[in-house]
Formats: sequence, structure tokens, C-alpha cells
Amino acid sequence: MALIVQKFGGTSVGSPERILKVAERALRTKRDGHQVVLVVSAMGHTTDELLELMEKIAVRPNPRELDMLLSTGEQVSIALVASAISAIGGKGISLTGAQAGIRTEPLHTKAKIADIQTDRLRQLLADDHIPVVAGFQGITYNGEICTLGRGGSDTTAVALAAALKADMCEIYTDVSGVYTADPRVVPEARLLPEISYDEMLELASLGAQVLHPRSVEYAKQYNLFIRVRSTFDEGLGTVVKGVNELENQTPVRGVTADLNQAKVALKEVPDRPGVAARLFGALSDRGINVDMITQSVRGEQTNDIGFTVTKEELERAVQVTEEVGREVGAKGVVSDEDVAKVSIVGSGMVNHAGIAAKMFQALADGQINIQMISTSEIKVSCVISRSQAQQAVRLVHNAFHLGAPLPAVEAT
Amino acid sequence: MALIVQKFGGTSVGSPERILKVAERALRTKRDGHQVVLVVSAMGHTTDELLELMEKIAVRPNPRELDMLLSTGEQVSIALVASAISAIGGKGISLTGAQAGIRTEPLHTKAKIADIQTDRLRQLLADDHIPVVAGFQGITYNGEICTLGRGGSDTTAVALAAALKADMCEIYTDVSGVYTADPRVVPEARLLPEISYDEMLELASLGAQVLHPRSVEYAKQYNLFIRVRSTFDEGLGTVVKGVNELENQTPVRGVTADLNQAKVALKEVPDRPGVAARLFGALSDRGINVDMITQSVRGEQTNDIGFTVTKEELERAVQVTEEVGREVGAKGVVSDEDVAKVSIVGSGMVNHAGIAAKMFQALADGQINIQMISTSEIKVSCVISRSQAQQAVRLVHNAFHLGAPLPAVEAT
Repeated sequence: MALIVQKFGGTSVGSPERILKVAERALRTKRDGHQVVLVVSAMGHTTDELLELMEKIAVRPNPRELDMLLSTGEQVSIALVASAISAIGGKGISLTGAQAGIRTEPLHTKAKIADIQTDRLRQLLADDHIPVVAGFQGITYNGEICTLGRGGSDTTAVALAAALKADMCEIYTDVSGVYTADPRVVPEARLLPEISYDEMLELASLGAQVLHPRSVEYAKQYNLFIRVRSTFDEGLGTVVKGVNELENQTPVRGVTADLNQAKVALKEVPDRPGVAARLFGALSDRGINVDMITQSVRGEQTNDIGFTVTKEELERAVQVTEEVGREVGAKGVVSDEDVAKVSIVGSGMVNHAGIAAKMFQALADGQINIQMISTSEIKVSCVISRSQAQQAVRLVHNAFHLGAPLPAVEAT
Repeated sequence: MALIVQKFGGTSVGSPERILKVAERALRTKRDGHQVVLVVSAMGHTTDELLELMEKIAVRPNPRELDMLLSTGEQVSIALVASAISAIGGKGISLTGAQAGIRTEPLHTKAKIADIQTDRLRQLLADDHIPVVAGFQGITYNGEICTLGRGGSDTTAVALAAALKADMCEIYTDVSGVYTADPRVVPEARLLPEISYDEMLELASLGAQVLHPRSVEYAKQYNLFIRVRSTFDEGLGTVVKGVNELENQTPVRGVTADLNQAKVALKEVPDRPGVAARLFGALSDRGINVDMITQSVRGEQTNDIGFTVTKEELERAVQVTEEVGREVGAKGVVSDEDVAKVSIVGSGMVNHAGIAAKMFQALADGQINIQMISTSEIKVSCVISRSQAQQAVRLVHNAFHLGAPLPAVEAT
């Protein structure tokens, strides 16, 4: 008998019919002899609809009131899912974040989980119930409802699984798992049976949109296995686990493209110490997240400093950069939204020379110009023209034979 | 400075525009120098929509899950109303039933309020906030969400007002107050500036649909003034208070028609002791509420026993009556849904002879046949044919000169 936490996202509980499917799946797992805890998100577009309502009333609503409002979405889902389980013969019981013992820090709209009191959940499990817990929410020690921010239901599921010392946390979604590349772009992309936490983290933050990064970090911290699988088919999906537990070490696990990047460059910066610190300090002070950073020698006395941010933060980033540019006597600021970041990720990369070179060569063979490069122990990223992103992903995917069956990949 | 609890129903908070109006009204009261606590219901048809969702999933959902589901409706409203107040310059803060300290007995879908801890509300009021409390809900000592049943937001408002020792509980609704008759039926019906608790109770249970009876009983118990007034105009509405505090004692306060009645008769019951007790005991055991009861002598050895129930309970009532009828050897059971109960209500009635006779004469003058009669100290009710209900209300309203200005009524 295993203890399994199953998390279902908004699409999976998007209609009464789908809710009944979710209930069937949970009950099947229970009847297979396991203990099951469900974590569910708000139905379909509920959260967006609630936000639209609020927008008509207050331009800058108090974060506390936003949490009060948005936490109802999950509360509706848990009541319906628990009722569906009971309707088909199980013992479903809904629990708000508060009732499930999920205590958060007092920070509205982006709280962290402080503590989980599992007594009630354990009692319900011992009593053969299938508890259905509201994702995305918890309660402070003062009884205030706090939400965990977008992607928070994944975090709830992983944190609950860790607190309950569950054997597995299954994240049900509308894709079959994690692929070597986006199957819509690369038809021969292959489903990965397993991936390491770090690889998943890079893929998640690179826009693979399967798991929220925070939940992966949490799972890594507690060495908890996550299985990402589809609500709509019976496939086993992808297991995310520690690098030492991977059955196959491959230098390159997958290729992704992030189209939500924009590039900013501060041109002809006087070459003296402290300029970069000043620029990125100012960006950080305004809460702007910088992703890639490059610095290139332009002439004897000047450098160009380039960096990328998300498109949403571009305007503010340019503003800050212009301010700093004037202070330090730079020539000017240019920006470009028409870029994409293509990356390869793999925890075996660090031990394989020539991986980066092979990627650059693949791009060069396709006449794709590389504008910026950044590398880490488990990834190589290149900023290229946005219009060439899909072609780049296909070329790189092919260069590393990622579409081939597993043994062939090992032979790379 | 007065402390005023203002309750707004589903229609009053039915859209963002209306929510902003509610916020303006609350803030105006606050700026007039009063302390204000709001109680709000779920927006418009939210509750019905949630119930429809649940119906698609479970035929007989667990009452606990229904409460979990339905309590979200009010939670959405409080977040929006509180945000609206803050958006126009006030200090709105939403409170769930739990956060407002409303403890209920552990009975799902029809809990009674056990206790209200007002510390937090008092603190917020002292701090110049306008607390916006979710109606219809509370929490048990075990942290379970319970709702108070239909009309429960009125009860929340009155109970909060009593607990806070408020000077007034204002119930905002989509009518201007309590009238001498339904203005849609009797165009000359007059708005009553005041009415006693007992009169209001009779009118509420007679289908006037202005205030939930439970809230009136609560107010009577605590001698709390309720003002029923319109959300959509500036009228003063009707104040509900103790009979001794009424400025005008009139024998007949108003006329109502209840179209949700059905009549059942057990025919030719052997005339021996205990039959009526058996019948109404059996009905009570099945949870069927009986309203009027009549017994008439038919012949030497037999009686007819008649009673009324709501239309919803007719089928079950007939079933029970047939069972009892067979046991006691009655001739048979007949039922009629095509009836209406027309009533006059007034706390001065007991001291005025001839009030009932005047009503009967008015009906007779209109060729309206009276099928059943029931009287109490403050009301006279007649069951008549449903098709004549509106005509009957107009005739009786006219007979008692209820449309005339107040002094003329006193002269009756």
C-alpha cells in the first residue's frame, strides 16, 4: 500500500463530466489498495473570471481581498470533486487549505507554506476517506486566507506529499508528461520516462509550462518523486526525481524555446569598475528579474552590456537602464522584443565536452545567428531571432538524436 | 454616533455597478458619523448556479459538501464589496463567517448560530473600518463550515446586530418596505412606516417575502429595531419593532395572499378520540409542516379533517394521510392545489370585535367562497380558490380602508 497525492489542475476539473472522471481515477487508485489524497485547482477559467469581476470594481484591489476572492475557486472544486467521489461509491471529503492544516506565512497573493498539520488528513486516511484538498491556499496563524500565487496548486500537492511522507506526488495535467521538445513544434519529440529535479527546474523556468518551479524545488528538497501525467489518457508520464536515481544519464535531456524573452543592451559603456553592479542593482531594486547577462568588449575604453528580461518587464527595464546609462555616460539603450531563447538541458552535460559546440554548429548549419549565449552546468541557452525559434528547436533536437529511442540516445 | 448593521441581499450586490452603489451607501452612513457593519449575500443567482453544478455531479450530495460549495457565494461578495468600499476611499475589510466570529451548531445546511465572538469586529470598528461580513454562514467549533439555510443572511445581520448591541439593523432589499398589501396586486397599497415583530412574523410566514421569519424572531428576542428599506431609492422603509413601541395601533395592518398552499382532506373519519392526534403525529414524524387545520362534523358518526401544507410537501402529505386513513377506516383522501390563503394581520385585532366578520362579508360581497378559516390573536386567514386570490386581497384591503392615509385608518 502506497500513499499517493494526486493533483488535478483547472482543465482536469473544468466540467462536471471531467470532475466525475477525476473521481473515478482517484477511486480506482484507492481500490488498487493505496491511500489517496487529492489536491485540486479552481475549475477552468474561474480564477480569470473572478479577476475580471474585481477589475470592474477596484483598479488596485487590496491583496488580502484578492485572496479572499480567489480562494473561493478551489473551494468550489473541492466540494464538487468530493461529492463526485461519494456519488460513485467512495468516501470523498473536501478540505479547505485551513481545514487541511496548511499554514502559510502572512503574505497575501504569494504566501509560502510555513507548516502543515497533518493530523486530520491522517485520521481521514486511516478512516478510508479520500480527502480532497483545495490547492493554492492556506491560512495564517491569525486566520487570514492567503494564496500561494500562480502555480500554487502544484506547490500545495508537493508540500502535502512531503508532509505526509507520501510515496509519490502525481501531477495530472493536459499533456502526457515531459517531452524532449514541444511536440507541436517537433513531431518526433519523445516522452521522457524520467528527468532530474534540476533538469525539470531548468525546463520549467525555460517555459516548458508543465510544473511550477517552486513545486520542483520543494520536491527536490524532500527527495519526493513527482509523476507528471495526463488526466485524459492512461500513460505513465514522466517521473521527476534525484539525478542519482535516474536510470538513464543522458548529456542532453531536451530542447526548449522561450518566446517570452526580450533583449536590452546598454551600448558603449565606459570601461570602469562598478558599472554592471550599478545597473543590475538598480534593476533588482525595482523588482525586475534579469535572466541572461552578457558583456562584450567593444573598443579600448567601452563595453556593451546586454541582458534579457520577460516581455512584461521590458518597458520598466529599459527605463531603469536609460537612467543608469545617463549616470554612467553610456552611449544609449537598445531593446528587441523579437527574440527567443533556445536551450538544451541535461544533467550529464557537465561531463561531456563539446555539447555546446554541437548546439552552436546545428544553429550555424541552419543559418541561424546567435545573439547571446549563456551556459550553466546543466544547460546551454542561445538568444536568436524569434522567427527562427521553431526551426532552431528542430535542428538542435535532431543534432542530439533526441527523437531516437532511448538506447540510441545513450550511445550519443 | 450610532452602530448600524446594513444587510444587502443578492439582488443588491448583483453586479459590479450595484456593488459600487452599496459601497457608496455604506460609506455615506459612515461619513454621517456612524459605525457600520455590512452583511452581504451571494451575488444574484450565484447560489442557484452552484446548486445546478452540484446536481450534475451528485443527486443527493452530502450536506457538508453543499455548505462547502454554497458558502463560496458570500465569500466572493464580501471580497468585492470590501474592495469597492476601499476603492472609493473607505476602509473596507471582508470577513468570512469564521473570521467574524460566528460560531454555529454542527448542523449542515440549516445550522443555528451558537455564539458570536465580536472582539475582532469591535476592534475593526474602533479602527474606522467598515467590516463586510459574509451572510448565511458560520463555522463550528471543529472548524466545519455550516450555512444557516435560505434567508440566512437576514439572520446573520440580526444576530450580529444583537451581539454588537447595534442601534439598528437595516435590511436592504428590492422593495421599499412592508406594504398594507402587495402593490402589484393592490395599486393603492400603502407603505407601512412601522410594524410590530408579531405582525411581521405573520406577514413573513404568510408569504410577504420581505424578511426571513427566523430573523424577526431573533430581533424580537433582543428587542432590536429592524428597518426594511430599498437599495434602489432613498425611502425610509418600514421599521419593525415591539408592539408597545408602535406609534400607531391599528386593528388591521395589512392583507396578504399565500399562493403556495395546498389543501388536503381526510373524508368521513370515524368520530372517535385520537384520530387527529394520529394523523398530525404521523405528518410531524415525516417532517411535514402543517399550517391550517379544520375539523367539521359531517354526520353523526363521522368527521372530515382538513389541513393545508405547502405545495412542495403535498405529495408526501397525501401519502401519509392515505396511510393513516386506511388505519382508522376513513372514506378517502382528497387534495386541492388550486387554493390560496388570504389573511389579514394586525396586533390590534384582538381588541376589536367584528374584524373577522368584516373580512368574511367583504369576500361574500365578491361572491368568493371561503373553504377554510383559521384565526389567531393577530390574524384571520381564509382559504379560497386560487383564481380569486387577487380579487380577494383587493376587496379586503378596500373594506378595511388600508389604502387611506394613516389617520383615516385609525378612525376605522
